[in-house]
Amino acid sequence: MKKWGSYAVDSPMDIKHHASLPMGGHSRANDADTKTRAIFVLAAKLAPYNVYGNPFYEHAGFLNVFSVDSTRAIDKNIQNAELDEKSAIHGMVFDSKEEYLYSADMWANKIWTHKKDPQTGQLTLIDSTLAPSPNDHPRWVEIHPSNTHLYVLMESGNRLCIYTLDPSTHKPIYTNQTYPLIPPDFDKFHPKMYRSDVCFCSQSGEYLFATSRSNSPDLTGYIAAFKLGKQGEVERQICLNPTPTSGGHSNAVSPCPWSDEWLALCDDEKGFVEMYRWKDELLGRVAHLDIKEPGFGMNAIWYD
Amino acid sequence: MKKWGSYAVDSPMDIKHHASLPMGGHSRANDADTKTRAIFVLAAKLAPYNVYGNPFYEHAGFLNVFSVDSTRAIDKNIQNAELDEKSAIHGMVFDSKEEYLYSADMWANKIWTHKKDPQTGQLTLIDSTLAPSPNDHPRWVEIHPSNTHLYVLMESGNRLCIYTLDPSTHKPIYTNQTYPLIPPDFDKFHPKMYRSDVCFCSQSGEYLFATSRSNSPDLTGYIAAFKLGKQGEVERQICLNPTPTSGGHSNAVSPCPWSDEWLALCDDEKGFVEMYRWKDELLGRVAHLDIKEPGFGMNAIWYD
Amino acid sequence: MKKWGSYAVDSPMDIKHHASLPMGGHSRANDADTKTRAIFVLAAKLAPYNVYGNPFYEHAGFLNVFSVDSTRAIDKNIQNAELDEKSAIHGMVFDSKEEYLYSADMWANKIWTHKKDPQTGQLTLIDSTLAPSPNDHPRWVEIHPSNTHLYVLMESGNRLCIYTLDPSTHKPIYTNQTYPLIPPDFDKFHPKMYRSDVCFCSQSGEYLFATSRSNSPDLTGYIAAFKLGKQGEVERQICLNPTPTSGGHSNAVSPCPWSDEWLALCDDEKGFVEMYRWKDELLGRVAHLDIKEPGFGMNAIWYD
Amino acid sequence: MKKWGSYAVDSPMDIKHHASLPMGGHSRANDADTKTRAIFVLAAKLAPYNVYGNPFYEHAGFLNVFSVDSTRAIDKNIQNAELDEKSAIHGMVFDSKEEYLYSADMWANKIWTHKKDPQTGQLTLIDSTLAPSPNDHPRWVEIHPSNTHLYVLMESGNRLCIYTLDPSTHKPIYTNQTYPLIPPDFDKFHPKMYRSDVCFCSQSGEYLFATSRSNSPDLTGYIAAFKLGKQGEVERQICLNPTPTSGGHSNAVSPCPWSDEWLALCDDEKGFVEMYRWKDELLGRVAHLDIKEPGFGMNAIWYD
Repeated sequence: MKKWGSYAVDSPMDIKHHASLPMGGHSRANDADTKTRAIFVLAAKLAPYNVYGNPFYEHAGFLNVFSVDSTRAIDKNIQNAELDEKSAIHGMVFDSKEEYLYSADMWANKIWTHKKDPQTGQLTLIDSTLAPSPNDHPRWVEIHPSNTHLYVLMESGNRLCIYTLDPSTHKPIYTNQTYPLIPPDFDKFHPKMYRSDVCFCSQSGEYLFATSRSNSPDLTGYIAAFKLGKQGEVERQICLNPTPTSGGHSNAVSPCPWSDEWLALCDDEKGFVEMYRWKDELLGRVAHLDIKEPGFGMNAIWYD
Repeated sequence: MKKWGSYAVDSPMDIKHHASLPMGGHSRANDADTKTRAIFVLAAKLAPYNVYGNPFYEHAGFLNVFSVDSTRAIDKNIQNAELDEKSAIHGMVFDSKEEYLYSADMWANKIWTHKKDPQTGQLTLIDSTLAPSPNDHPRWVEIHPSNTHLYVLMESGNRLCIYTLDPSTHKPIYTNQTYPLIPPDFDKFHPKMYRSDVCFCSQSGEYLFATSRSNSPDLTGYIAAFKLGKQGEVERQICLNPTPTSGGHSNAVSPCPWSDEWLALCDDEKGFVEMYRWKDELLGRVAHLDIKEPGFGMNAIWYD
Repeated sequence: MKKWGSYAVDSPMDIKHHASLPMGGHSRANDADTKTRAIFVLAAKLAPYNVYGNPFYEHAGFLNVFSVDSTRAIDKNIQNAELDEKSAIHGMVFDSKEEYLYSADMWANKIWTHKKDPQTGQLTLIDSTLAPSPNDHPRWVEIHPSNTHLYVLMESGNRLCIYTLDPSTHKPIYTNQTYPLIPPDFDKFHPKMYRSDVCFCSQSGEYLFATSRSNSPDLTGYIAAFKLGKQGEVERQICLNPTPTSGGHSNAVSPCPWSDEWLALCDDEKGFVEMYRWKDELLGRVAHLDIKEPGFGMNAIWYD
Repeated sequence: MKKWGSYAVDSPMDIKHHASLPMGGHSRANDADTKTRAIFVLAAKLAPYNVYGNPFYEHAGFLNVFSVDSTRAIDKNIQNAELDEKSAIHGMVFDSKEEYLYSADMWANKIWTHKKDPQTGQLTLIDSTLAPSPNDHPRWVEIHPSNTHLYVLMESGNRLCIYTLDPSTHKPIYTNQTYPLIPPDFDKFHPKMYRSDVCFCSQSGEYLFATSRSNSPDLTGYIAAFKLGKQGEVERQICLNPTPTSGGHSNAVSPCPWSDEWLALCDDEKGFVEMYRWKDELLGRVAHLDIKEPGFGMNAIWYD
């Protein structure tokens, strides 16, 4: 958790470790006595295929950029883009052309906009935008395939906030539209017990899924689905279904990248991954696999 | 289970047994070696306050009518309205004026319409109506407060079928509108594993709730909510949320009779009763009470 | 107007009169000094291709049935099915298999159900059903292609009433769902000034169009569109647009029988036929043709 | 048309001219041989009650600001805020606190944002924003009472574009949501024949109305209604009804400022004002008044 790792997925049964690199940025980030951890990583899909990583908790005010070798394993720490001193980013997303990078900064309560250099893949700061409420704590960002709307999931606010992207500055602008990720008033009934987790568009861009978790096995997490219009605007919230468990530290949904029909959901309260079917705008669990490894599991990836 | 019982609810902590009467109708219904059981009972709310009970399983082709004494405890078996030989009714509902009684007959796959005599409370057969599909098996009926629509829950069909009531004959007529109580194709993925349970209107008549159960702890049951129009027509299905367990033999929802905001849900897989809040057309569990009595629990009642 | 006429449409420019027959039924219907008129006619599309006609106003209590000759011109009056003495039917529709005939009787305020003999095409009475309100005066009936719902347009009630067809008796049963064909309270603002006209499904069965007229050039008529579900249930009213004129005695909409995209609308206040395009659930007038013949025009037909 | 006029409305029957002032800004604006005209005027509702006016057509690149005297008649031209050389603003709106002014500039195809000085009422430029398409030509702007959304009506684009207001810069940001003000493809069927006119929120902020006009008496204009959410977001387009005429140079809708139920509509093709009732999300014309004055009429005001 103090290093960035890189693995080759040769097949579902053949996942190999290639390289590990220390965190960049703050001089104390890699010290054994600091709480700094390597928490989130995003690989570019366009050349030069850099990898962008976020330290978290302490001494986390730098966005680490890594070049890759010919196998696309991480190679060198080529940039550490400075953020705020108290920053701690937990989720990032590129627009579909990988020209702009949006980052959800939980501890500075901001969304960052960086421009990516098309040659070097290095980042230039555009601006940062405060979340609408001091209690929001943006944890995750997703962008619509049309590059017109950004969906910002607020971990502490337990809501999804809809942003439109300014076509000139490319900064996210809050539309004042927001949707709940836990039932009404549940943050009052159970203060500080819910922490929303992630949000992802379906492959077609027609739907958005988002999840929340709780801190207690007595309180379930939730999974929400939203109908998106052609321009990425949210037309309506379709559902807010309870998940089987609190979700533990996870409850992350992973929609299938080549079909709207299937979703994976990870839990680390009990340790399982489940598969759901999305059909006729109804959600149904179709498979459950217990994985009794301590710490399992956070985020699923799909392999075709 | 071979007798009809009558209890006085003097307070939530003070529920007393008053009387038990044998099942009426078939000569062998009360024999120890038959499977006939007293399964469902409906008390009239208007004088003469008769009680209407349904035997089930074997030798169940008679709708038992009981008079009550001055305390409204069941007193005498005053009528046994003959049904089909293979009949087995599991749910009944009066219209709001208690002029007509509608009964869901699982084994004869029918809905029965009886007229109630306003003086004696005895029943006269109007007619019976076959369910739309031979596999439907009507288990529960609910009527809209406007007396214009009947909602028939199909145990084996795992769907809710919408009927309109013929204003001249008072018989239910199928509108061909139907809504799923389990996710799409789950009856094919898991044949004979789901059995829908009950449906009830909210106090205002604006919403209808319906539940389904499964036969395995590996498959959750579901709770569905529907938006009703002023005439009781279903405007849309709002949700189809998984329940925490299979529901066992129960998973029955009991909406609060004096508010749309609260619902009780009983489970007998693990044995608990839960309370849900219905707010902004979203459902959230607000309380859970384990009751570790074998066989707990089937249907909750509300006491004010 | 005292006779039933039959014309061959050889091409749009070549419409020839073949035969005319007197009205059947009442002995005084054809007398010059009675107001009886031949008002509505419906040709069967299945052998033996009988033609069904309705006298109107006075002495109109008989549904006239005519056989056709080898060219399908009307030939002989083979049946006069007796209705009520005060009956006056103004619109009729067969189910898609032509097994049952539904007739809107304005003056007896009823919908009639007749069974058609598949060999002779003659009618047998099933039953008649009173309209929900004494002021409704059913003028037009349309059936959904799925044969599950009947749409009854009320001339005086200025509303569309939704019926479901009883699968056993085939009679229409009112679902208590009704939609306005003039704006709210316009029947109070302008008593007896509106008369709804006709309703038709689009070719696909996905939409229903209905129109109303007024008795004054100062008040426009209206055209309404409705979204239908797969079972023919009305999901919602889409619009209630004013028409260019009162519509006069007409304002009849004629959807194109081979596309949902085009509708014709006839007016006889000023005398024109217009063409509308139905696209993205929006209605737009695309053509207008003045036809300055006195009495033009009532109902358009499409010729391909 | 070459001067700004100021009238006292003492009662509906008593409207008096007080003062007229020349246009400010360009040296040639007031010359008899230029086409410059005083086209649109907006009076502040907060002290110092300045009046903001827009020249149009030629030499119109200045936003004229006027102080008022003690009767609130226009008094002096105190500022001429410079725009683009080719600018021609046709509609303006303040946010509800009158801190920011938004202006629709047809000929420069822009929306301007100015800050208003709370003491002097004079304007400081924030920025201008190009319309999404070069053919849009913004003609009218309306703001939601919550100050979160700006609705920009495009005269030539014949569409309504939804903007959100950046909470930090107060500039409008296009959300990529847009709705048609004429039926689909009517700009292709009749090129350059439609010109959208105005848009206004209902008093409650729940609805937005917008109109379009045509250049030919053979083509009607249209009136559209939209449902707004609590944050001013457009939930859906409710209707797109034809107006009785092309609308001429007008077809402007004026919702009643103290009720959602009533709307006025002005026409100058034939010269009339009409009153519509908005009830149950349906629109109905309830009054029509011919005013046979040449040039009548443009925009109605309400007087209580």
